[in-house]
Amino acid sequence: MKLVQKRSRKTGLPPGTLVHIGEKKADTVTMTVFDYAGARCDERTVTNPEELRPPVDESVIWVDIGGVHKLDLLEAIGAQFSLHPLLLEDIANTDQRPKLDDYESYLFLVMKVLSVTETHDLLVEQVSFVLGRNFVLSFQENGTDVFKPVRDRLRGGKGRLRQNGADYLMYALVDAIVDQYFLVLESLGEKIELLQEKVVADPKPDTLREVYALKRQLLFLRRAVWPLREATNAFSRSDCPFLHEPTKVFFRDVYDHVVQIVDTIETLREMVSASLDIYLSSVSYRLNAVMRVLTVITTIFMPLSFIASIYGMNFEHMPELQSEWGYPAVLGVMGLIAAGMLMAFRQRRWL
Amino acid sequence: MKLVQKRSRKTGLPPGTLVHIGEKKADTVTMTVFDYAGARCDERTVTNPEELRPPVDESVIWVDIGGVHKLDLLEAIGAQFSLHPLLLEDIANTDQRPKLDDYESYLFLVMKVLSVTETHDLLVEQVSFVLGRNFVLSFQENGTDVFKPVRDRLRGGKGRLRQNGADYLMYALVDAIVDQYFLVLESLGEKIELLQEKVVADPKPDTLREVYALKRQLLFLRRAVWPLREATNAFSRSDCPFLHEPTKVFFRDVYDHVVQIVDTIETLREMVSASLDIYLSSVSYRLNAVMRVLTVITTIFMPLSFIASIYGMNFEHMPELQSEWGYPAVLGVMGLIAAGMLMAFRQRRWL
Amino acid sequence: MKLVQKRSRKTGLPPGTLVHIGEKKADTVTMTVFDYAGARCDERTVTNPEELRPPVDESVIWVDIGGVHKLDLLEAIGAQFSLHPLLLEDIANTDQRPKLDDYESYLFLVMKVLSVTETHDLLVEQVSFVLGRNFVLSFQENGTDVFKPVRDRLRGGKGRLRQNGADYLMYALVDAIVDQYFLVLESLGEKIELLQEKVVADPKPDTLREVYALKRQLLFLRRAVWPLREATNAFSRSDCPFLHEPTKVFFRDVYDHVVQIVDTIETLREMVSASLDIYLSSVSYRLNAVMRVLTVITTIFMPLSFIASIYGMNFEHMPELQSEWGYPAVLGVMGLIAAGMLMAFRQRRWL
Amino acid sequence: MKLVQKRSRKTGLPPGTLVHIGEKKADTVTMTVFDYAGARCDERTVTNPEELRPPVDESVIWVDIGGVHKLDLLEAIGAQFSLHPLLLEDIANTDQRPKLDDYESYLFLVMKVLSVTETHDLLVEQVSFVLGRNFVLSFQENGTDVFKPVRDRLRGGKGRLRQNGADYLMYALVDAIVDQYFLVLESLGEKIELLQEKVVADPKPDTLREVYALKRQLLFLRRAVWPLREATNAFSRSDCPFLHEPTKVFFRDVYDHVVQIVDTIETLREMVSASLDIYLSSVSYRLNAVMRVLTVITTIFMPLSFIASIYGMNFEHMPELQSEWGYPAVLGVMGLIAAGMLMAFRQRRWL
Amino acid sequence: MKLVQKRSRKTGLPPGTLVHIGEKKADTVTMTVFDYAGARCDERTVTNPEELRPPVDESVIWVDIGGVHKLDLLEAIGAQFSLHPLLLEDIANTDQRPKLDDYESYLFLVMKVLSVTETHDLLVEQVSFVLGRNFVLSFQENGTDVFKPVRDRLRGGKGRLRQNGADYLMYALVDAIVDQYFLVLESLGEKIELLQEKVVADPKPDTLREVYALKRQLLFLRRAVWPLREATNAFSRSDCPFLHEPTKVFFRDVYDHVVQIVDTIETLREMVSASLDIYLSSVSYRLNAVMRVLTVITTIFMPLSFIASIYGMNFEHMPELQSEWGYPAVLGVMGLIAAGMLMAFRQRRWL
Repeated sequence: MKLVQKRSRKTGLPPGTLVHIGEKKADTVTMTVFDYAGARCDERTVTNPEELRPPVDESVIWVDIGGVHKLDLLEAIGAQFSLHPLLLEDIANTDQRPKLDDYESYLFLVMKVLSVTETHDLLVEQVSFVLGRNFVLSFQENGTDVFKPVRDRLRGGKGRLRQNGADYLMYALVDAIVDQYFLVLESLGEKIELLQEKVVADPKPDTLREVYALKRQLLFLRRAVWPLREATNAFSRSDCPFLHEPTKVFFRDVYDHVVQIVDTIETLREMVSASLDIYLSSVSYRLNAVMRVLTVITTIFMPLSFIASIYGMNFEHMPELQSEWGYPAVLGVMGLIAAGMLMAFRQRRWL
Repeated sequence: MKLVQKRSRKTGLPPGTLVHIGEKKADTVTMTVFDYAGARCDERTVTNPEELRPPVDESVIWVDIGGVHKLDLLEAIGAQFSLHPLLLEDIANTDQRPKLDDYESYLFLVMKVLSVTETHDLLVEQVSFVLGRNFVLSFQENGTDVFKPVRDRLRGGKGRLRQNGADYLMYALVDAIVDQYFLVLESLGEKIELLQEKVVADPKPDTLREVYALKRQLLFLRRAVWPLREATNAFSRSDCPFLHEPTKVFFRDVYDHVVQIVDTIETLREMVSASLDIYLSSVSYRLNAVMRVLTVITTIFMPLSFIASIYGMNFEHMPELQSEWGYPAVLGVMGLIAAGMLMAFRQRRWL
Repeated sequence: MKLVQKRSRKTGLPPGTLVHIGEKKADTVTMTVFDYAGARCDERTVTNPEELRPPVDESVIWVDIGGVHKLDLLEAIGAQFSLHPLLLEDIANTDQRPKLDDYESYLFLVMKVLSVTETHDLLVEQVSFVLGRNFVLSFQENGTDVFKPVRDRLRGGKGRLRQNGADYLMYALVDAIVDQYFLVLESLGEKIELLQEKVVADPKPDTLREVYALKRQLLFLRRAVWPLREATNAFSRSDCPFLHEPTKVFFRDVYDHVVQIVDTIETLREMVSASLDIYLSSVSYRLNAVMRVLTVITTIFMPLSFIASIYGMNFEHMPELQSEWGYPAVLGVMGLIAAGMLMAFRQRRWL
Repeated sequence: MKLVQKRSRKTGLPPGTLVHIGEKKADTVTMTVFDYAGARCDERTVTNPEELRPPVDESVIWVDIGGVHKLDLLEAIGAQFSLHPLLLEDIANTDQRPKLDDYESYLFLVMKVLSVTETHDLLVEQVSFVLGRNFVLSFQENGTDVFKPVRDRLRGGKGRLRQNGADYLMYALVDAIVDQYFLVLESLGEKIELLQEKVVADPKPDTLREVYALKRQLLFLRRAVWPLREATNAFSRSDCPFLHEPTKVFFRDVYDHVVQIVDTIETLREMVSASLDIYLSSVSYRLNAVMRVLTVITTIFMPLSFIASIYGMNFEHMPELQSEWGYPAVLGVMGLIAAGMLMAFRQRRWL
Repeated sequence: MKLVQKRSRKTGLPPGTLVHIGEKKADTVTMTVFDYAGARCDERTVTNPEELRPPVDESVIWVDIGGVHKLDLLEAIGAQFSLHPLLLEDIANTDQRPKLDDYESYLFLVMKVLSVTETHDLLVEQVSFVLGRNFVLSFQENGTDVFKPVRDRLRGGKGRLRQNGADYLMYALVDAIVDQYFLVLESLGEKIELLQEKVVADPKPDTLREVYALKRQLLFLRRAVWPLREATNAFSRSDCPFLHEPTKVFFRDVYDHVVQIVDTIETLREMVSASLDIYLSSVSYRLNAVMRVLTVITTIFMPLSFIASIYGMNFEHMPELQSEWGYPAVLGVMGLIAAGMLMAFRQRRWL
């Protein structure tokens, strides 16, 4: 999760030149094809991109490509489906802002898949979709299992998935990704609740570092989700001919989810900022407490020590020193001073 | 009032799958039906959802469902009124953002009911409405009494309620909920006024915690009310055929209320932020006061003690020690130094 | 000037129910009628609302009602001028946000009258206007003298007032209220200038409290004026048939004033925030000054006292003690140390 | 440069009443007329406003009025050019927000002239323009020399000025004023650069006061320039018949300048805020440095003094006192403690 | 990278007067011409601007001018291509805000080229483009190598460049500049990551200065990129006849890049602000740590020293002094007090 991705390799190259930007997250590239129409559903793994082509009949195919770093493969797929060179460039560049581009004969959507690792880190991965009249291409950085529920539903044949067109499949895939965002929010929400406790009970620099790690994760989350708002809204309002009205209702539902996620992110951001304020206030309050102790001790013992040091002077003519009651009298005066001081502090509520 | 609701159970399920998200707030589900037209008003409790159906004549029915966790029941009601599966999904999910969805043959509105408990906590509950040509369905998490005034007016037959259609009933229900927001604001407003006193008089970490609890409650309030602005505005501008012009005037009034609530929330938020600034300033001012005492004490007694310690040295040749006036002279010098210091502090306004 | 008005009495009542919200600011309700047309101008006081009715000829009447807490009276007036029940509800509720509502046969405007008391408090009062084809109704909480200049101009017959229709009268009344806002701004501006001096010269908690009182007053001011921007703009763009083009030019002028007031409020808010920053910086700078004094004193006297205490030890074998020059030598060393310390402090600019 | 202008004199007067608001900046009112058409250019000074009138032929006249406090004069000019009373009121009121008003037969523009005095104060002066088909009236508070370059170009006859209509003259005048804003920005920019140095090198309350003076000047600047953005944009998009297309290109250029000025003001505001943050951080860092010195001194000398005071006790049975090596041993222990403390501080990087 | 550019030389000059604003970055002015059409590509250097003219056939020419300080040269080029005087003025003024102006027969674009020097400073340079039907003029402050990749592609003849019109060439040039922005972001991103480490590990005023240098660089970056958003968007939506539809797709891609850069700048700005907060929190936490040490030392040794000073008093009648166990008893009591204090501090987690 670096602040800025390295893309220097790309500078100066002609536009449309395929350059893979980002970490290589998988060694091989997997290509899984689902070809279905109502009752029928064929699933196969493909290694030669020339086997892929848009269906000519009314069936729907979904090609799920895991890995975008093999540029010749991308080009071959692009040739099979007549994809624009800029689109291929965007797929290979994993540092894209989420967006929906309308290329008339197909729609191009870039999204981020978010997940939380076991060590509570945030993983960001890019997924690109191409939605044609009766095909969906999905390009993942590696073949994660975010689409597993959709694959299972396709295989099982239950629900609306097989009865509907490519647009509904596209919706199902996007919805699966957006559903994962809620899991990430849940994890972050729990961390923030824990943090708020820590920050009041024991403000330490480590806590501060946690606050900033959360701040940074929320920033990344926002960057991933915020532009999706516009993109999903564009889906539900698109006049693209192969997006059917009933599917648009489903996209509006995704849009609602994205808006809610954006809302929640803003709330979490405010709570993290509040945590920082609590941290500073706690530190500042503790400083006060420490200083009060220091002041009380100093204020009590300085006058007492001063009195003792007076009678420690070696003058020959100090009449008190000879007095039999001198010592107890001085001790008594000291006791009175200490008691008076303590009462003054109590009155000022310093103790 | 958790920052993020748990909805992991939902992840990976096909869209339109009914999953109840949120706490189960009631054991049984109650269904109350009001069926009225002008002079007539029948009220009955229903247990079998198949008894429910949209009226065929010009009467209006209102079905108030208390409890959204029984998913088969929701589905049965959905079947009776031909509700979209996504709509049912939204009803079962109590972590919705307020919104108005237009499904052409009915409108779907999600809102939050807010109330303040006796221990001054904020309770949030979701209510969903379906407004058809001559029916209103209201789904509450449990059957609270927020609609009691409306029920009473229906029973009594006074006012416009029975003379008007389903749209006016819908308005009456929404208005009842929005009216409760003012009560919540009143309670929060009072707490904030109290807090501002405390924060100046006695800034303690507990006060800080109260500030943050209020901040959080206002954040929740804003999340509940802000999107309602858009939704109620959409009502007053809707071209939906079963929303009559005279009723839209009433919805514009609700919209005005919501705008005023949003305004007040922003004011309260600013006052809470101001409280935090006062807290920090008070703590910082008190630190100054403490430090001044410390400095005054130290500055007065350090030189005096130093002088005393000089004449406590055991050198054999210290002529002052033998002088008869040595002791009173030293005491006099000490007195002068102390008086001079005090005057210097007075001049700098430290005392 | 409470943060949130008490309106609990209203909760649960049917819409359109008249409930007076706010303090009762007058005992009786006064009703003054001006009935004029060109040269003619009759002024009379009315006690029975049934005497009031919209003029049938081309004359204009202005009814100025002082007091909105007598609900039966409001209803009677509403009946005479066929006013919508929601409008009457809004008049009786003095906790309204400024707004302009178009009821087709009349316009309804709610505004706030602001004034500064002699003790520099801010007084907020609500005024509602109903503008019909040839009548203006104005509802004040009590009969203040904000309209006195307009009454005088009507009586005197000078200027455009009598020559123009109800719309121009309405403009004159609104303009009189907006003019008063400038007086309030002037008073606040002066207070803020004074405050800025105080905050640098002598930062005390009382000054802080003043800062917050001003912050709050500006917040109230903004809430009263901000929505008026939209309302006056709507006036100058309205296509309402009884708002004549020449009058709209005047309303555009009012709009310009409101925009300028909003601008000035924002400037004042920024200056108040700046005052708070000065306060904190001053306190923090003073803490530094105090701490430097403490450190200088401690750093000079601690080593000196330490040396003195060494020669106060009672070891039998301390050769320096017997030396004749021991005492003056030690005093000399102490003097050198003190001088060295002072020089070091001067160099660091601590003195 | 007061926060709020005094305009109480105006309250309660009928609209359109001429009242001069602002300081009287000149004693007499000067009126200079330029009457030109291509090759011809007559310049004369006028004392009687009745000599002024819009030209009937194709020549252009520019009347530059210096001083707006003589209200009868303003009225006489208004009568000659048929100006709307509200427009005259706006001219006499020097506390106007910049704006462009379209009165159909003429355009009315209010702007602020800004200049920096030799003592680095910001001077704000109001200029109003009336642009008719073939005349331009400019009203200044006093006759400054901001228009000198335009006068010179008119006299010299070079450039496009005499060949073009009144609209181009108007542009030239507005452009001359906007050009001056850049000078003000330059001066402020230099002050801010200087300040940033001071704030790190030597943070004093005086520096703080400078920060706030700059903040205030930028606030005034923004208030003067921000609304001009909209006004100049309106010029370049106006469909007013006597604004010719080629001139609109020039107004678009002015608009670009204004946008750039607004941008620069925002940048300067951010840098001033940054200065304040540096100030606070520097003060806080210095406090740390002071406290470290105090702590180091205290921590080293307190234990040493304590040891010395132990052997200053007068117990009869203290075997160490009789020991021959007691004194050097104690001195040695003291040296070790001091060395150990110093090493510990070095390790914590406090020294 | 000054906050405000010096442009005083310009004030008072007639509009359209050419004045060079900015540093003179090159001595001579270079003019390179590429004249190409499909297979053909001629490259030559020109010294006399009269050799330049728009091509009459279907070939495309690109004139790359390095240096804008020779005003007569600019005027000569302007005459050859019939450029508007304001446009030339904008080219000569290197303190322009990025913008796109549509002069109907050509488009005018101003951009900033950004680069990072080896000492990590940010270099800003202005480039202006004029795009005609079949020519592109590019004006750089000096002839940097930002266009080298485009020149190479033109020479090599590979890719789409020679097959397409002037609009595609324009796109290639703009894309080359925008690609460089990513390099600048990369460099800034790395600096910010480094800074965040430093700020926690060792907060020093130097670090603070670095924070502000970064803040300032990001501010400059934002000013350079933000308006480009609008300009590139205008390109992709322009209805200019010589901007072909396929090229607009490429400009939309540039727009996407600019939006992403703006996003990243905002993220970096938030992280820099966070760094400042960490700095302040670290300093404040360290102050606490220092104060705790001071308080612990003082609190332990003050009472001990006081006890020692009591038995250092010279009263004749102090029975403890004669006691054989007096000395060890006092030492024991001191040890107990010290141990008790240490335990109390441990309990409060101060040690």
